[in-house]
Amino acid sequence: METLIELKSLYTDLICSKTGKIYDKNQLQTYSDLNKPLIAQYDLLQGVDRDLLQDRPRTMWRYREVLPIENDKNIVSLGEGMTPVFSLQEVAKKLGLDHLYLKDEAYNPTGSFKARGLSMAISKAKELGVKKCVIPTAGNAGGAMSAYCAKAGLEAYVFMPVATPEVFRKECEYFGAKVTLVNGSIRDCAMEIAKVREPDWFDISTLKEPFRLEGKKTMGYEIAEQFGWELPDVIIYPTGGGTGLIGIWKAFDEMERLGWIGSKRPRMVAVQTEACYPIVKAFQENKSIAEPFQDPEETIANGLRVPAAFGDELILQALYESHGTAVAVSEQAMLDGLRELAQTEGMLISPEGAAVWAACKKLVEKKWIQPWEEVVLLNTGSVYKYMENL
Amino acid sequence: METLIELKSLYTDLICSKTGKIYDKNQLQTYSDLNKPLIAQYDLLQGVDRDLLQDRPRTMWRYREVLPIENDKNIVSLGEGMTPVFSLQEVAKKLGLDHLYLKDEAYNPTGSFKARGLSMAISKAKELGVKKCVIPTAGNAGGAMSAYCAKAGLEAYVFMPVATPEVFRKECEYFGAKVTLVNGSIRDCAMEIAKVREPDWFDISTLKEPFRLEGKKTMGYEIAEQFGWELPDVIIYPTGGGTGLIGIWKAFDEMERLGWIGSKRPRMVAVQTEACYPIVKAFQENKSIAEPFQDPEETIANGLRVPAAFGDELILQALYESHGTAVAVSEQAMLDGLRELAQTEGMLISPEGAAVWAACKKLVEKKWIQPWEEVVLLNTGSVYKYMENL
Repeated sequence: METLIELKSLYTDLICSKTGKIYDKNQLQTYSDLNKPLIAQYDLLQGVDRDLLQDRPRTMWRYREVLPIENDKNIVSLGEGMTPVFSLQEVAKKLGLDHLYLKDEAYNPTGSFKARGLSMAISKAKELGVKKCVIPTAGNAGGAMSAYCAKAGLEAYVFMPVATPEVFRKECEYFGAKVTLVNGSIRDCAMEIAKVREPDWFDISTLKEPFRLEGKKTMGYEIAEQFGWELPDVIIYPTGGGTGLIGIWKAFDEMERLGWIGSKRPRMVAVQTEACYPIVKAFQENKSIAEPFQDPEETIANGLRVPAAFGDELILQALYESHGTAVAVSEQAMLDGLRELAQTEGMLISPEGAAVWAACKKLVEKKWIQPWEEVVLLNTGSVYKYMENL
Repeated sequence: METLIELKSLYTDLICSKTGKIYDKNQLQTYSDLNKPLIAQYDLLQGVDRDLLQDRPRTMWRYREVLPIENDKNIVSLGEGMTPVFSLQEVAKKLGLDHLYLKDEAYNPTGSFKARGLSMAISKAKELGVKKCVIPTAGNAGGAMSAYCAKAGLEAYVFMPVATPEVFRKECEYFGAKVTLVNGSIRDCAMEIAKVREPDWFDISTLKEPFRLEGKKTMGYEIAEQFGWELPDVIIYPTGGGTGLIGIWKAFDEMERLGWIGSKRPRMVAVQTEACYPIVKAFQENKSIAEPFQDPEETIANGLRVPAAFGDELILQALYESHGTAVAVSEQAMLDGLRELAQTEGMLISPEGAAVWAACKKLVEKKWIQPWEEVVLLNTGSVYKYMENL
């Protein structure tokens, strides 16, 4: 029912995240010469009155000025964003926390936070004339890309690990995508794409094109808006490719420059599984890059089985800058957490979300989180796509 | 983040839907002496300013005055309601319709419209001192009841057909419910409950207690509000137990008495599957009650496999009064419709929702729907709970 408003994007440039070198925003770009992600820049000092948001559509497109699409007609939207924030009162009480919240990204098209990044990336691909998109995926990103490609009239090619629950494959196929199953992890899928790559395929791998990040950053804008422009003390985020964490951190910086928030920042926490924890390992060793994780094990949290995140440096940077941390949790802790939230709060969340809850408990026990601190957990997707794992 | 507002309920009475006889609202009630549903009444002439809604929480509890809970502390909410309405522009164009919308009830806790009825029924059960709830279910209602019982701290007992996709059973068990699988349809589940019934079980079967209807009616309130208080011309609804259709129709009547809308009403369409179509049969034969459907076949739309709806008279009454109709669609038409919406709109919806879309096409072909009419389809739940069927 809600229609988009014709507003100007403040998008100015793409720069290399390492060197700051400018890349032409009117060309189709992937990543920089140094194999680093390209980052979208905006003319933020021009300012935007945040009160204007009140009458905007309740989707991520409400932050229109700080999104990189030049012409509204290229926006491919299925209603993504402005997901609800729930107060977890019962488990908070048990844990001795005063303010515990869960932002539930299951309330997105195709049931996951991947909708944000793919809505943006496919909109921009359409704007720049792409016809065929390809993606390696642990599951949810493939479904989201397939949906947005269907809506945009683009061809979709999806590569996913054989171990992915069948739901994810079927979903892509219903959307009309061509699916290839690959032995191994999402990393092997990416290598397979490199091998069979068709010349006219555009690779939508996260951070290997600049715009999924711009979709994901809207989680940060929403957290600020939903908390009355006062950021919480701690944000706990399940980290596979880590684009969401990087995006949220970027959003805070942009909003400060827009004059929407002050300089207070949450401590950012990356959560991984003991089956695959390259970021946690790098953080513990105080490194600025993460080595690819050798021999990742199977996990019920498919989205966390990412042995080598292309944005490793940016993830670690956000953790260090925010005085955050990184935590790996066991498969059992995820299952226990899932059951606990279901039976106590009446909320059944994805294994990735359960991992975040398990990490939260660990951090409270270690007193890394204080009872009076405001804590936000991210649930990245619908549990109903994971029932095969449970 | 949103908190409930302390507002008074205008709830006055429970009456028999057949005779108007009043039942004590302070007692736990089931259905009337004549085996008919009991209906909640409100002191509507007192009036409520609809502009007050603007600042209310974006859940069904925004209509607080016309909901039957006496004390806010008894409200058991997981954020149900205010689901999005999407414009289906691509398929509308193909079909030659100017205004086609889909209200997507997948955006509810536990992924279905059942959340509304169960939030209300469990809130009221809690208010009246119930400790143990039992339900026969085709799938989604069982999951929803289990979630709200978990949140409320009540015991949950769920009876579902063996043929229900495993997701539904697992979901209930995660919420801590006790699940019994039954050979046959939801009707056989109800009979099984009657057989093994424990004295302290309260039966939450739809319309066999008065309050699921009050939750479901909020869909009608939302349609009015989301369409700017001008109701659409046609509403097409997948009809198993039919509580939603009855509820929407009740909401329109209440809103007119509140002064929120005028006398214009949509034509209401009940959609069933050729595997089980008692309401369609009764409507075609111009009857006021529906005979139990003999030997229902298996269907991919589990929610439509209801051979005998307890509210049959009220469903048929709404169809007749609204100059509506009833349509049965084939299993193949559902599958085709599902694929068509996925590949054209990028929306993968439940088989029940796909049935509604298939029925819409039939009605446009028959010119029962005119090109300029405003049509609203209801998708009742998330497709991700049905993947085993697809």
